[in-house]
Amino acid sequence: MNFKILDCTLRDGGYYTNWDFDKNLVRTYFEAFNNLPVDYLEIGYRSSPMNSYLGEYFYCPQYVLEESSSLSNKKLVIILNEKDVRAEHVPDLLGPCVGYIHLVRIAIDPQNFKRALSLATAVKKLGFEVGFNVMYMSNWESEKEFLGQIKEVDGIADYFYMVDSFGGVYPEDVRKTYDIVRNQTNTAIGFHGHNNLQLALINTLTAIDCGASIVDATVTGMGRGAGNLQTELLLTALNAKNGLDLDFNSLSKVVDPFAEMQKDYEWGTNLPYMVSGANSLPQKDVMSWVTKRFYSLNSIIRALSNQSKGLKDN
Amino acid sequence: MNFKILDCTLRDGGYYTNWDFDKNLVRTYFEAFNNLPVDYLEIGYRSSPMNSYLGEYFYCPQYVLEESSSLSNKKLVIILNEKDVRAEHVPDLLGPCVGYIHLVRIAIDPQNFKRALSLATAVKKLGFEVGFNVMYMSNWESEKEFLGQIKEVDGIADYFYMVDSFGGVYPEDVRKTYDIVRNQTNTAIGFHGHNNLQLALINTLTAIDCGASIVDATVTGMGRGAGNLQTELLLTALNAKNGLDLDFNSLSKVVDPFAEMQKDYEWGTNLPYMVSGANSLPQKDVMSWVTKRFYSLNSIIRALSNQSKGLKDN
Repeated sequence: MNFKILDCTLRDGGYYTNWDFDKNLVRTYFEAFNNLPVDYLEIGYRSSPMNSYLGEYFYCPQYVLEESSSLSNKKLVIILNEKDVRAEHVPDLLGPCVGYIHLVRIAIDPQNFKRALSLATAVKKLGFEVGFNVMYMSNWESEKEFLGQIKEVDGIADYFYMVDSFGGVYPEDVRKTYDIVRNQTNTAIGFHGHNNLQLALINTLTAIDCGASIVDATVTGMGRGAGNLQTELLLTALNAKNGLDLDFNSLSKVVDPFAEMQKDYEWGTNLPYMVSGANSLPQKDVMSWVTKRFYSLNSIIRALSNQSKGLKDN
Repeated sequence: MNFKILDCTLRDGGYYTNWDFDKNLVRTYFEAFNNLPVDYLEIGYRSSPMNSYLGEYFYCPQYVLEESSSLSNKKLVIILNEKDVRAEHVPDLLGPCVGYIHLVRIAIDPQNFKRALSLATAVKKLGFEVGFNVMYMSNWESEKEFLGQIKEVDGIADYFYMVDSFGGVYPEDVRKTYDIVRNQTNTAIGFHGHNNLQLALINTLTAIDCGASIVDATVTGMGRGAGNLQTELLLTALNAKNGLDLDFNSLSKVVDPFAEMQKDYEWGTNLPYMVSGANSLPQKDVMSWVTKRFYSLNSIIRALSNQSKGLKDN
């Protein structure tokens, strides 16, 4: 296959567990993936101390990096939230990752694209591969300034990711956006889908068909809100369609414990997530209104639709 | 919109509840749908007495027909299993449905297509609309005899359905099969998807784009095995994409109680259903092997793949 697969279960799934994971589960995760046709494992964030409690995979301290490296034969990845990190923090924040981490991704609001370029330059200087994960793909059409700047990633980023933050794009949107990006840059293109409309698989296969070099998935789709493309679905589809060699025993070993956890945490799509995806509304706003139960779904949707589309989600 | 939507929650969901449903749930179902942009409601089977116990929506006796009609402002539908019903049974079996039921669908193995034509003719004689639901769509390419007979539905069937029994087709397969069928018959074409690979929405939207006249869905996707396209997902997508007028309050009123039931019954896709879908294997076989837990998933998949593709599923 001429594309890479990145599993980001621990990083994206951390939104449900506050980035705490049982030690045995983590061991099962790494051991199973050692036998699976996946190239990269994203284990978490690297962050300066935050005010509220956040678990170890939000910080990935030295001992997590060491343990992960000793358990895994894959290329390991961490991600930075661009809004929380400045270029001058990079040597302190990422110095300890050298030798353990292969790829550093940066989650970027298109409005902060210029600032992200300096951050990425500092990351690149330490020798990491760099991923530019640009969010809110379904709203890029109105981000003309950003669209004109994409070419500036050349020579800095190893991967330019289209991130369907709202889970609201259709295969034809993936094709259109891929073409726009390809016309701007020669950098390898990635796709990170969300599953609000259960389109994560077909959007990801469409991105691959367009020529994407890397795509993301998580075990059982564990991830913020409606979650991600299921790693097991992507691998099973590629096995049947493209003859990808796949050890189903290892796959089911890692899927089983996460499927158990899903019964408690209940990630996956539901009616409010479908509505937020279909209308590119921030799902955390939809959920916080729905949880309050003061208002009917009709009035919540009307209120959110009337709000500026400038609202942000991840 | 120039296509109809058919909700078959009670019929397809009955595989999980043995066709028993709580009376209040049924009332909520019909009342909510009275305010939703759906054309047909399929309430169950009509069947001769079976040996083992099956609930009221497997038989739809007179009082169920009366109650459903009194609660609903939609066109009501029942379905027959072609393999269990002969043309000579039709007057006794369907006579009591006249005046209550608008459309009678017939679930058909392509190998029994000729026999199904006589059954359909007897149904049509009673004045019902007739739906030809032909199963195992992903294997039709090897059913040359059946493909050559499709034109014989003209004048008998009101709808010719492509049924993705294994949940294994992709949008490009929907297009290809639609074209094959359209070249054979002028009868209106329908699509019934399953969600093993989470492709039910995109396959259904693709069928609509091809010109399908009717598509199926169930609330929360409740239905055999991995289940169906979620009615709420289809309606939400059509609301956002095509401006379909949609009362989200009524929609959430009917989704809520089924979402509660789903926590107990756990319909929806999982790794074994993904494998059966991706490889067009009968999902009931995959599930019965997996449940036994005597064998690894690798060996189950190998064994099933080696079996003749003549095995049947619904």
